Amino acid sequence: MKEQLTIVKVGGKIVEDEKSLNNLILKFKLIPGKKILVHGGGRSATQMAEQLGIQTSMVDGRRITDREMLKVVTMVYGGLINKNIVAKLQSSGINAIGLTGADGDVMRAHKREVGDVDYGYVGDIDSVNSLLLSQLMYSELVPVMAPLTHDGRGSLLNTNADTIASSCALALTEFFQVSLIYCFEKRGVLSDASDNNSVIDKITPQLFKKLVADEVVEGGMIPKLENAFSALNKGVEKVIITSVDQLSSSGGTSIKLD
Amino acid sequence: MKEQLTIVKVGGKIVEDEKSLNNLILKFKLIPGKKILVHGGGRSATQMAEQLGIQTSMVDGRRITDREMLKVVTMVYGGLINKNIVAKLQSSGINAIGLTGADGDVMRAHKREVGDVDYGYVGDIDSVNSLLLSQLMYSELVPVMAPLTHDGRGSLLNTNADTIASSCALALTEFFQVSLIYCFEKRGVLSDASDNNSVIDKITPQLFKKLVADEVVEGGMIPKLENAFSALNKGVEKVIITSVDQLSSSGGTSIKLD
Repeated sequence: MKEQLTIVKVGGKIVEDEKSLNNLILKFKLIPGKKILVHGGGRSATQMAEQLGIQTSMVDGRRITDREMLKVVTMVYGGLINKNIVAKLQSSGINAIGLTGADGDVMRAHKREVGDVDYGYVGDIDSVNSLLLSQLMYSELVPVMAPLTHDGRGSLLNTNADTIASSCALALTEFFQVSLIYCFEKRGVLSDASDNNSVIDKITPQLFKKLVADEVVEGGMIPKLENAFSALNKGVEKVIITSVDQLSSSGGTSIKLD
Repeated sequence: MKEQLTIVKVGGKIVEDEKSLNNLILKFKLIPGKKILVHGGGRSATQMAEQLGIQTSMVDGRRITDREMLKVVTMVYGGLINKNIVAKLQSSGINAIGLTGADGDVMRAHKREVGDVDYGYVGDIDSVNSLLLSQLMYSELVPVMAPLTHDGRGSLLNTNADTIASSCALALTEFFQVSLIYCFEKRGVLSDASDNNSVIDKITPQLFKKLVADEVVEGGMIPKLENAFSALNKGVEKVIITSVDQLSSSGGTSIKLD
């Protein structure tokens, strides 16, 4: 039987605040077995861009990444946030190693083609170096992945952290039984946005359709759930949407195929 | 017999300019055997600090690193410069992996004690994880080291790139025959600063004393040479000061014990 691997994706909000980052590390440490942390950091990037007088444009929640913005996300995701998390994990006894897609050729992507929108230096993932990630984990290292890929031709690319998490999860099913946990501020997918206790235990494709139709699930949660179903269809064992506090327990919303 | 390892340290000036970075990569690729690249980036950090309205203070050529400046160097060294070099190396077929001292606990340091000057978040190296660096290199990866260490208690520290290069060189003598190459804009140590052809072939401790007394060698070159002698005394096989263009040839100034 394959060994267990847990991939935890955390949003920027969690890693950008010292207190919630410390809480994340406490809870992340409790997860047994092999693990990977994938982080975002959009709000810090927006803030840094603003300080540098660079304007942020978003289309459908996605950042337009021109040359100047690519520098900002490279600094903020690959440097500031990633290395801060790694240093904190080290202090808690977790031998973390920070990676962008360029490091060890871990995630190669191509620049998204210009359609209705030119997203600029945004990458759609072509390959994940699951062998190297496995080797690192078997050397007792814990990969911490920044939302950056590279095109193999010398350029870094900005890539959505949810997608990085699910692409890594898929690639690593080759070697592991993979659980994918999307961690955010709420305790799960809520049936009533105003009630943090209205967590939906389980979402199947059938229920998902209904929740979208009823506008219970909307915005960024839609692609997150679509990603989750796709991951399950391709061999990921378990997908959970939950809060940091429930990270090592069994709370949150389970995404299931049936 | 131990395998050869070449550690190349390049100053910020070389990696901050696209043309000279491309040239570095061409020449670095020609170095046979195992290799590590260590980079600086002070000028970019100063420039970024300025853009962010953060003042840079230097004492004896060393940066005072307060909390705000630590953020800047983490972004610039660990993110912007390191990841840009890694992506470029990848495009030339070198499987590079970018590392700060926190990644894989590669370089642990302590915050420099406050003496006449409080340098702030500046680290003096306590240990180098030579085993992990060796493992990475035996997995055909080429480490690219940013001038950042960590204190094991959650903080990154700013550490001089020359020192990182010589500390890594020393630690890796355990497993390799190590050559250490300090690469800068000139072709070597010059006997006449205005004549780029006046390269001194070889500097021994005896000649070094004379060159300092005669003010031929001054400023930042003095600690560089002191570091070089110390490295040779502790088992590093070869130390060379040279230019990028001579990186894979035998040019430049050799530092020798006799």
